[in-house]
Amino acid sequence: MSINQLGVVKRNIVRADKAAVKKLGKFGVATIHEAMGRVGLMKPYMRPIYKGARICGTAVTILLQPGDNWMMHVAAEQLQPGDVAVAACTTDNFDGFFGDLLATSFQARGALGLIIDAGVRDVDELEKMGFAVFSRAIHAKGTIKATLGSVNIPVICAGALVNPGDVVVADADGVVVVPAFMAQQVADAAEKRESFEGEKRDKFAAGVLGLDLYKMREPLEKAGLKYIN
Amino acid sequence: MSINQLGVVKRNIVRADKAAVKKLGKFGVATIHEAMGRVGLMKPYMRPIYKGARICGTAVTILLQPGDNWMMHVAAEQLQPGDVAVAACTTDNFDGFFGDLLATSFQARGALGLIIDAGVRDVDELEKMGFAVFSRAIHAKGTIKATLGSVNIPVICAGALVNPGDVVVADADGVVVVPAFMAQQVADAAEKRESFEGEKRDKFAAGVLGLDLYKMREPLEKAGLKYIN
Amino acid sequence: MSINQLGVVKRNIVRADKAAVKKLGKFGVATIHEAMGRVGLMKPYMRPIYKGARICGTAVTILLQPGDNWMMHVAAEQLQPGDVAVAACTTDNFDGFFGDLLATSFQARGALGLIIDAGVRDVDELEKMGFAVFSRAIHAKGTIKATLGSVNIPVICAGALVNPGDVVVADADGVVVVPAFMAQQVADAAEKRESFEGEKRDKFAAGVLGLDLYKMREPLEKAGLKYIN
Amino acid sequence: MSINQLGVVKRNIVRADKAAVKKLGKFGVATIHEAMGRVGLMKPYMRPIYKGARICGTAVTILLQPGDNWMMHVAAEQLQPGDVAVAACTTDNFDGFFGDLLATSFQARGALGLIIDAGVRDVDELEKMGFAVFSRAIHAKGTIKATLGSVNIPVICAGALVNPGDVVVADADGVVVVPAFMAQQVADAAEKRESFEGEKRDKFAAGVLGLDLYKMREPLEKAGLKYIN
Amino acid sequence: MSINQLGVVKRNIVRADKAAVKKLGKFGVATIHEAMGRVGLMKPYMRPIYKGARICGTAVTILLQPGDNWMMHVAAEQLQPGDVAVAACTTDNFDGFFGDLLATSFQARGALGLIIDAGVRDVDELEKMGFAVFSRAIHAKGTIKATLGSVNIPVICAGALVNPGDVVVADADGVVVVPAFMAQQVADAAEKRESFEGEKRDKFAAGVLGLDLYKMREPLEKAGLKYIN
Amino acid sequence: MSINQLGVVKRNIVRADKAAVKKLGKFGVATIHEAMGRVGLMKPYMRPIYKGARICGTAVTILLQPGDNWMMHVAAEQLQPGDVAVAACTTDNFDGFFGDLLATSFQARGALGLIIDAGVRDVDELEKMGFAVFSRAIHAKGTIKATLGSVNIPVICAGALVNPGDVVVADADGVVVVPAFMAQQVADAAEKRESFEGEKRDKFAAGVLGLDLYKMREPLEKAGLKYIN
Repeated sequence: MSINQLGVVKRNIVRADKAAVKKLGKFGVATIHEAMGRVGLMKPYMRPIYKGARICGTAVTILLQPGDNWMMHVAAEQLQPGDVAVAACTTDNFDGFFGDLLATSFQARGALGLIIDAGVRDVDELEKMGFAVFSRAIHAKGTIKATLGSVNIPVICAGALVNPGDVVVADADGVVVVPAFMAQQVADAAEKRESFEGEKRDKFAAGVLGLDLYKMREPLEKAGLKYIN
Repeated sequence: MSINQLGVVKRNIVRADKAAVKKLGKFGVATIHEAMGRVGLMKPYMRPIYKGARICGTAVTILLQPGDNWMMHVAAEQLQPGDVAVAACTTDNFDGFFGDLLATSFQARGALGLIIDAGVRDVDELEKMGFAVFSRAIHAKGTIKATLGSVNIPVICAGALVNPGDVVVADADGVVVVPAFMAQQVADAAEKRESFEGEKRDKFAAGVLGLDLYKMREPLEKAGLKYIN
Repeated sequence: MSINQLGVVKRNIVRADKAAVKKLGKFGVATIHEAMGRVGLMKPYMRPIYKGARICGTAVTILLQPGDNWMMHVAAEQLQPGDVAVAACTTDNFDGFFGDLLATSFQARGALGLIIDAGVRDVDELEKMGFAVFSRAIHAKGTIKATLGSVNIPVICAGALVNPGDVVVADADGVVVVPAFMAQQVADAAEKRESFEGEKRDKFAAGVLGLDLYKMREPLEKAGLKYIN
Repeated sequence: MSINQLGVVKRNIVRADKAAVKKLGKFGVATIHEAMGRVGLMKPYMRPIYKGARICGTAVTILLQPGDNWMMHVAAEQLQPGDVAVAACTTDNFDGFFGDLLATSFQARGALGLIIDAGVRDVDELEKMGFAVFSRAIHAKGTIKATLGSVNIPVICAGALVNPGDVVVADADGVVVVPAFMAQQVADAAEKRESFEGEKRDKFAAGVLGLDLYKMREPLEKAGLKYIN
Repeated sequence: MSINQLGVVKRNIVRADKAAVKKLGKFGVATIHEAMGRVGLMKPYMRPIYKGARICGTAVTILLQPGDNWMMHVAAEQLQPGDVAVAACTTDNFDGFFGDLLATSFQARGALGLIIDAGVRDVDELEKMGFAVFSRAIHAKGTIKATLGSVNIPVICAGALVNPGDVVVADADGVVVVPAFMAQQVADAAEKRESFEGEKRDKFAAGVLGLDLYKMREPLEKAGLKYIN
Repeated sequence: MSINQLGVVKRNIVRADKAAVKKLGKFGVATIHEAMGRVGLMKPYMRPIYKGARICGTAVTILLQPGDNWMMHVAAEQLQPGDVAVAACTTDNFDGFFGDLLATSFQARGALGLIIDAGVRDVDELEKMGFAVFSRAIHAKGTIKATLGSVNIPVICAGALVNPGDVVVADADGVVVVPAFMAQQVADAAEKRESFEGEKRDKFAAGVLGLDLYKMREPLEKAGLKYIN
């Protein structure tokens, strides 16, 4: 199955290990991105449609055609509890592909939210439902149901490659994709990273400077930094 | 009176029927846009300046020159209770054409809010006043009073044609313009559309799929959709 | 010390007069911008990362290299109570140069907030800490510590020149920079300006039109404005 | 026929007077825009796809759906010699709706070019054919033929209202729309305006300053301009 | 080797079949995109830096860090005759990562050009050298050599997934990526597609309408299209 | 004289040394930017309005108000042979502030070109006249003459600080500003830098790799770069 292939629905996908997903859910997007070696982020234009939205789940991917949300309905059937719908489009398009009716359907299937590189609508209702959505735009523009895209193929969403079953974590800092096969390893690395942060925070709070904590004075001098009065 | 004519104020405009406006006020922007046949939306860059802002009223249109808000004062006199000021500019400009003083004046005239394809300022005060504003930008940049624009001529605001007297509805999903002569018809269509939504929502909540509810399986197969494992 | 010079840290800067800074803190960004003669604003893409963020303090300037936040740590040492860190970058870059650890350090030094023409992360934590940040982007993207920038040199941040020690005021309407030597004069002018606003607001609220309050009818007629029916 | 109505083709449209169109063809876009009273321009993102492209003709309007160029074929039949196709889209979309095959068809009908608020492709071939195109984007992205738009209804293209039959003039400075009923009047005003320019150009070339030619020194002084050394 | 992994250089990559690459070189980007089933395009912001630039070759991929072109030099060693360097960046960055010196080195290795989702400089010299470049920006901004990226890993460049060895074709219409394993099949499909175009072009030139050629009148009527006078 | 002060014209400015300006004119923008220590560039959205445009001269600065080109005429009088007009605006504005009449006047004064962080028009005529212009936009939109800006004060143009008398160099790679007092030093550094390039170019052309020329293999290994097969 190659990327962006049209007209295909894959039924059986390998979802990331549940325990690993659960563990990843404890960490923020910035921490996970660092734990992965500073990769995996979607573009920063992806924003939560309401304050406090947060998601951690396994991706069911959707490839949409511009102005056409037919594949959303096809995707609904493939959603399982704990999944996150991740929708890309074959071209830049800001229409409102998704609203409260589809959210009701997705939520009934157990889906936790939607990551969409396009627009959504009914955002007040989506907030009331507690259905988390991260999108590129909010737009009331309606769509049709006429052209085939795909479900559960590899897609590129907001600059990030997403394979079905990958873990997608989203919070106020953005959206990060963890490949399914790395989920446990990244969760462990994130945990380790976070364990160091508390101590650092205490030191910073006590007035210790990063210059001293990270022993930067010498390398800065070596790099040529000059202090003047 | 042709579009964008400069230096003209029209005093007597035909406002949309009050009952129709009131009825339109019950529906969301997405619903009204659909009820109109999927047209009438402004560009999605128009956003509420505070959460919860909502407007439904009759348009008093304003054509501004860049960096000049003189016509705002001319428009104030033409505002009547239930009106919404709709301001376009002869060129792309993000200055703060409108703040709390003008809002006090507009509110005293009975205006419900402002839709402006440009910038505004004093946004915290505007929120406290409950004066709803949808704009392209928030910018403290002040303006002058030196060049003639017009009031109550047809304008293009954020990609939508607005005639004075048209109904303008704005909520978290964007801004839609309903021509005055279609107000009642669109309100009725919106009502009808919404009456169907409750039933659908219940079905989706109960787990019925859109694939079945909308009988999409056959057309999808016909279109060539392939399921693989 | 010329603008954007790399590899320099200035230790002793002349901060604006404390009383003037305090007085400026009473006024909004729009008022101060007007009091300065309508100059001094940063570009409107600079937005608060949380609702209610507000800053008024003296600038410690930082020049960053793309994807590199080393200078943030160098700057921390130069911060004094009442300061605001103002960070520019040598090129357009949206990475997350700043998060909760650095904020803890800056806050421990007495800094009030950060103005950054780039991205930040950990925005939920920053809000909880009450550390005010105005930025161009929110992005989880991490940075390295390898290249020299500068601290306390003149920089251009979001289109505005900022000299170390200048007063920076930021609120929901944007960010304005008041040169240190003008701080008292601008504060006085802002006070004067605001004293006139109350009376005007009352008149507008009572239904007086700007057309009459500002005696605009004659100049509008002279300019050729035509009223039609 | 209201703006942006979907599913309609108007066969008989009133084209602007041929002599007026011909006369307008002698002037540049900037001159015509000034002659109209500084209105009528499309947004500056509309650019010629090759150097030297220039059009002056009568508009056959097209309303497209995103990713769908079906209406291009419907429009072809309505084109007459001297026409310009003017294509708007119901939403922002950058796909390549038009290429050399359609251009061959349009050219066979006598059309002079295309103004499109979207993308086109085969731009090298279009240049070789001498088929002038002004567009928002160049994109190889293909489109489908599945959804109804309209032909020869009023549309908003790149921020300008275009009625079928209006005169559209495009050159290196942009695109301007002259309402059919104003064509002669605007052509005359453009001629008059241009007749003054030659003399001015000679004076400027001879070293006369605008300050003196336009007698600006007094008004500048009155406005408060200060000369310092 | 996962996508965007940092600090890795793959030496032996499987390049697409030479004959297939040669055959693909005969077709335009739009044709190839259609032949692939309408996928594979980069975003339309990727533009040739000079008129007439055209490339068809096998990808050597490069992952850059912002403001750092160290990996360009690492990549040079991996380039073989007929290759195209395809450079992505870990974040949006417009710096000038590439100029005439690197182009001299790449050209000496037999590389045909560069596709870069960032900026380049020395564009006049690049044109003189006949070294084809498609980029997102032109920017004189210099870069450093301090941070590891990777060479010959899968990257996402301007929204398209590129695996090392894939065929990249670029012309005035944009950039398309053909996976190595599909190269022959796509070349054949493109040939077939183009063979149909000549006949169609002749018919269009003779005045036959697409409405008749493609038998669209009936489906348009069925879809509800209405002709009015 | 502080930055962006309104209503002021400075008559006597200190222009950079003529010999230094002449020498700077021999080098490209990228070379000068590097010779300055990688600073001084305007944003990359500043582009030449025609291919081959190139400028090197001393700045006469202009601060414009949105939609108002009055100060252009004031500036004309301050221009001397070898000068370049550098125009900033108090806010983002894309109007056509400048066309062939003003260019005739500027050229008669001996000015070499215009750098403007806004729009221009009559671009075909400007090319024919050989009057070099670098701008942010091309737009036919006309402007008025009603509001005071300033001439020969420090301005920020496209993100760069420009003092009157500074050297401005512009070519296909962008625009760089050299402070007047550094002109000779930067010209010398540019010369030195360029003298090294010829030798490097020969080596690259002969197939030497940057890896070896710059002795990068060891530092890359130290940084952790891994070669795999």
